[in-house]
Amino acid sequence: MKRSELAAGLTCSLAAALSQIGDAWSLLIVKELMLRNRRFDGILAQTGIAESSLAARLKALERTGVVEKRAYQARPTRYEYRLTKKGEGLWPVLVTLTRWGDGWSGHEPPPLRYNCTCCGNDAEPQLACSTCSAPLEPRSVAAVQSDAMKAERAARSAT
Amino acid sequence: MKRSELAAGLTCSLAAALSQIGDAWSLLIVKELMLRNRRFDGILAQTGIAESSLAARLKALERTGVVEKRAYQARPTRYEYRLTKKGEGLWPVLVTLTRWGDGWSGHEPPPLRYNCTCCGNDAEPQLACSTCSAPLEPRSVAAVQSDAMKAERAARSAT
Repeated sequence: MKRSELAAGLTCSLAAALSQIGDAWSLLIVKELMLRNRRFDGILAQTGIAESSLAARLKALERTGVVEKRAYQARPTRYEYRLTKKGEGLWPVLVTLTRWGDGWSGHEPPPLRYNCTCCGNDAEPQLACSTCSAPLEPRSVAAVQSDAMKAERAARSAT
Repeated sequence: MKRSELAAGLTCSLAAALSQIGDAWSLLIVKELMLRNRRFDGILAQTGIAESSLAARLKALERTGVVEKRAYQARPTRYEYRLTKKGEGLWPVLVTLTRWGDGWSGHEPPPLRYNCTCCGNDAEPQLACSTCSAPLEPRSVAAVQSDAMKAERAARSAT
């Protein structure tokens, strides 16, 4: 099974997400765009991705609507890459993944910190309930599966 | 460059994280373990990963300390897989990635929801500042790069 086929037949938004963004290079490219490093050569320099891989990944990200190409110069036309709204929606994914990496990667201090413009402190981003603001962790939530997901999982475990 | 070499020479916790968990299958396996589906056959049934791939991924996840193998039966010895503390730390990554997928995957209602045990409401998990609880998004934080990261990026863009 190819990664792009991952989501077919699985009632799972994680699988859907991974089928579009679930490879290491794509997320590193998205990170560069978030850091406003938007041109092919700049992304190449910062990530060390092979040129052909980078071109293929950018095309795939364009196809799935994560990235859009914009001309920033005419004669010769030159392009840069921008995150779409869908692409910007990956910010919490990059933040949580980066913070997980901070925990054991040995980079001290953490390479990237976030300063909260609201309180001025170093923001330790954490998941919180949008209604009551309680910090969320596995033990403070009850996971509720949709009927479709439940039915599919039951069928799969029966086979 | 192989994925496992991704983090070498990059002062980047995201690259570090991706070098260990940045493939679609690994994250799907971690999701199954979070859903308490801990045995090889059960994970196989729910994910559709090829048997040999699943075995290889579980071994890699054990090697990087995300998963540990525990005997749950003697004669014959049978094993199940448990997330370590490091593995449980991936929960926010799975939640944010899943919610990103919810947004456009067409699964309606979302396959997996979280009920906040604090307020009883459907918890829309969002990133918040751990000090002042303000919701965090790209525009409400200032990203601060460490000196090592800044120096490395400057050197890379100069070449």
